[in-house]
Amino acid sequence: MRAGDLASLARLISRIEHRNHETRTLIELLYPHTGKAQVWGITGPPGAGKSTCVDRIIVHLRAKGKKVAVVAVDPSSPFSGGAILGDRIRMQQHTGDNGVFIRSLGTRGRHGGLSHSTKEVVLALDAAQFDVILVETAGVGQTELDILKLAQTVMVLLVPESGDSIQVMKAGLMEIADVFAVNKSDRPEADKLVRELTQMVGLSPHDADSWMVPVCKTEAVRDVGMTELIASVEKHQEYLSKSGKRAEKAKAFLREEMIDILTEDLRRSIEAILATSGGVEVLDRLLKKEIAPYEAAKLISGSSG
Amino acid sequence: MRAGDLASLARLISRIEHRNHETRTLIELLYPHTGKAQVWGITGPPGAGKSTCVDRIIVHLRAKGKKVAVVAVDPSSPFSGGAILGDRIRMQQHTGDNGVFIRSLGTRGRHGGLSHSTKEVVLALDAAQFDVILVETAGVGQTELDILKLAQTVMVLLVPESGDSIQVMKAGLMEIADVFAVNKSDRPEADKLVRELTQMVGLSPHDADSWMVPVCKTEAVRDVGMTELIASVEKHQEYLSKSGKRAEKAKAFLREEMIDILTEDLRRSIEAILATSGGVEVLDRLLKKEIAPYEAAKLISGSSG
Repeated sequence: MRAGDLASLARLISRIEHRNHETRTLIELLYPHTGKAQVWGITGPPGAGKSTCVDRIIVHLRAKGKKVAVVAVDPSSPFSGGAILGDRIRMQQHTGDNGVFIRSLGTRGRHGGLSHSTKEVVLALDAAQFDVILVETAGVGQTELDILKLAQTVMVLLVPESGDSIQVMKAGLMEIADVFAVNKSDRPEADKLVRELTQMVGLSPHDADSWMVPVCKTEAVRDVGMTELIASVEKHQEYLSKSGKRAEKAKAFLREEMIDILTEDLRRSIEAILATSGGVEVLDRLLKKEIAPYEAAKLISGSSG
Repeated sequence: MRAGDLASLARLISRIEHRNHETRTLIELLYPHTGKAQVWGITGPPGAGKSTCVDRIIVHLRAKGKKVAVVAVDPSSPFSGGAILGDRIRMQQHTGDNGVFIRSLGTRGRHGGLSHSTKEVVLALDAAQFDVILVETAGVGQTELDILKLAQTVMVLLVPESGDSIQVMKAGLMEIADVFAVNKSDRPEADKLVRELTQMVGLSPHDADSWMVPVCKTEAVRDVGMTELIASVEKHQEYLSKSGKRAEKAKAFLREEMIDILTEDLRRSIEAILATSGGVEVLDRLLKKEIAPYEAAKLISGSSG
């Protein structure tokens, strides 16, 4: 896999997604080889042109000789089947290029572990020596925000016509955006949105050492403004290194990984206990209101010790 | 609070949301008084008319003498401030009616515990003797689906013009819908959508004992079709009681509550450990790649014992 075989990488990632004891062995083996990749996040409302933009970024980065992986995460897509079909279509134009890898992660059959899986897929791609890993999500729900936390630089892609929905999201977007891109910027309302975003950036609390979030104008379809967008992201990456924020982000990533691993462990052992006769009895007593929830939880955690 | 004082109920719910040791005491005290309320879920894409529909349902249920509480959960709204403003506007028309209570829950400052909070707020409203608790969410992301699981009957509200976005969501919606409503059904494409949904329902696997998901036509703005929609939900509630599915749902709810309680406990103790010098040292060694993630997690869980 580390030698660049994409088929074996795809198999490896499926095994990580599958989440059993083997996942852990794989992560432990891969971990020492991680830490070199840049992780870029990209989000925005449906129809903002994220896929087109990601495809353009791939082409630009390939021209610079960089290896690029894309992890497209759609927490609201219930069909991983659909996601896989999408991968095939998107991969077609990069067929035969070992420097590009695209993978979608859906929520089918998952129990809230999507951000944990994504984190470990990113670790695998990092170990596979991709230079840039693009994490693409749709929207800014809780799960998406959790997922974007694992990117070092987050691009937020907006379009003039998103109008009202953007109004609502703006405050949330300000918290996560390192770079704004106003896509489809040939449309009439584009300049207004650029002005609004620039103002918003200026008004947000910052000091001399803060990163000033740039607002780029792009037309991904016609490949306009992509060089500037990529340059902005690269500038943010330099900022992270110089300011010491890169190490901070790496620590926060690992801290969350610890919490995820231990929570996943616990969830499994609780589910196991709830399936035993003792666990069933506790649930029955709870249902009959002989005991209350936190009392019942204590009984269950007692039987785990 | 149980006597129907809405101001003390609002304070109680804030205390439950606050999530400290007191939350537990409150839930233990309230729990014996729960189990009577019907919990109805309602979801749909933005612009489907959920708020209007919920307001109509309130009016209809009030006319039948039922006490109604609404919990509006928006996982993608980063500002609880906005949510509260919304509550005020929505409550205005029910001012002075002690039989109506509306509360929004946002994600501001939360760590993935939104569905747990919502569950416990529903328990409090149940104990406060509301007959129907409406849980309203936007969209069908992972967090929304988790939240809807706590409703006994889920209404999915669609509109003809949602078109493509519905196509994508359909499969996911089929899994959660107990009742479909095609709102704004005066629009030209409404009948087409009704036909499509009815077909989809017919094609989904079912046997003689299965609930056949009805497809209602509504125009919430003009109060058209609301009686039929509410009758469909009530029919589903009867179905749950007769089929024994109500007890199954109650058990699943309590099972998830157990997992949530224990996971929240664990998260707190991990965060405490990570803040100690021992925890900081483990993170440092992990950052330096002297150890790997699962090995580090084992060290952390060792220090919790």
